[in-house]
Amino acid sequence: MEELRRRILADGRALDDRVLLVDSFLNHQVDPELMRAVGEEFARRFDGEGITRVVTIESSGISPALMTALALKVPMVILKKSASRVLQDGILQTDVYSFTKNARYKLTLKCEFVHPDDRILIVDDFLANGEAAFGALRLLEPAGAKVVGVGAVIAKMFQPGASRLREAGYRVEVLAPIRRMSAGKIEFE
Amino acid sequence: MEELRRRILADGRALDDRVLLVDSFLNHQVDPELMRAVGEEFARRFDGEGITRVVTIESSGISPALMTALALKVPMVILKKSASRVLQDGILQTDVYSFTKNARYKLTLKCEFVHPDDRILIVDDFLANGEAAFGALRLLEPAGAKVVGVGAVIAKMFQPGASRLREAGYRVEVLAPIRRMSAGKIEFE
Repeated sequence: MEELRRRILADGRALDDRVLLVDSFLNHQVDPELMRAVGEEFARRFDGEGITRVVTIESSGISPALMTALALKVPMVILKKSASRVLQDGILQTDVYSFTKNARYKLTLKCEFVHPDDRILIVDDFLANGEAAFGALRLLEPAGAKVVGVGAVIAKMFQPGASRLREAGYRVEVLAPIRRMSAGKIEFE
Repeated sequence: MEELRRRILADGRALDDRVLLVDSFLNHQVDPELMRAVGEEFARRFDGEGITRVVTIESSGISPALMTALALKVPMVILKKSASRVLQDGILQTDVYSFTKNARYKLTLKCEFVHPDDRILIVDDFLANGEAAFGALRLLEPAGAKVVGVGAVIAKMFQPGASRLREAGYRVEVLAPIRRMSAGKIEFE
């Protein structure tokens, strides 16, 4: 997605070979027009897949996922990050490890928001090791839903998330796939 | 906002005189079309105020705030909730107490995303005691920005947030002002 790549090169900042700062337009300050374009691009790529719900992970995934859900005319469901186990009926939880934050959290879904006949698109801002996406799969599939694919706004293709998901049989669409980075330098695939 | 009130009556659930569950369309599962209508309504009400940024609080405020920012054609800034103090240059933090969760968190703003000439609209999903809104004000005003108003999707008018903000001189717009609630019963102003 050319517009997004241009924006990453103009306003993003690679701090080293792992950390890409895009907080001026994607996850702290957010450009709503860019998010709308991102949502429309995911909707175009997954057109014809019969998506019934867009699922994302709290909280940086919400903006691109909401715009994708708007374009697809389906609800969005937010998987919450809880610090501790929620003791409540109808709640599914799974442990996820975040490499970025070096911390564990419990990804949480209220079951009533996913149905056995759902065809789900997972949308998130970043895909790196795939921990969050596999956590989402561990919640959605036992609920009986079919996960049709994963859409990542940015993916660090030199980390294993995208290929792990593809090897497991999922369609992965990345709007800005980064081949490699170093301080001040970003190279797309 | 009639469409929103109808939706709250149809799909919301008052558990008691304090807790209103709207997680099937506002904060766990989200209806993107309704959020777009909410954003357009805030944009209409604050039209002519010269808003330059919409600011919200992680994470349930993001959906209505993003759609408001889209309608106003301005950026959205997300105030993050940190568990601990962030030691980093250019970061402002303030302590906020959440009555809902009976917990404290540190509301966090990266200063570069608010400018002295900004005219800011704060948008959040709920307004009750006003703790989060006053926390946002404590971050935004020292940065030199002018807070033009506060938009709440739902406000519990029997709690002091809306009147505290108005007494402090802020314009408050509430799309669904709740006069009182009890188990199974919701009454709007």
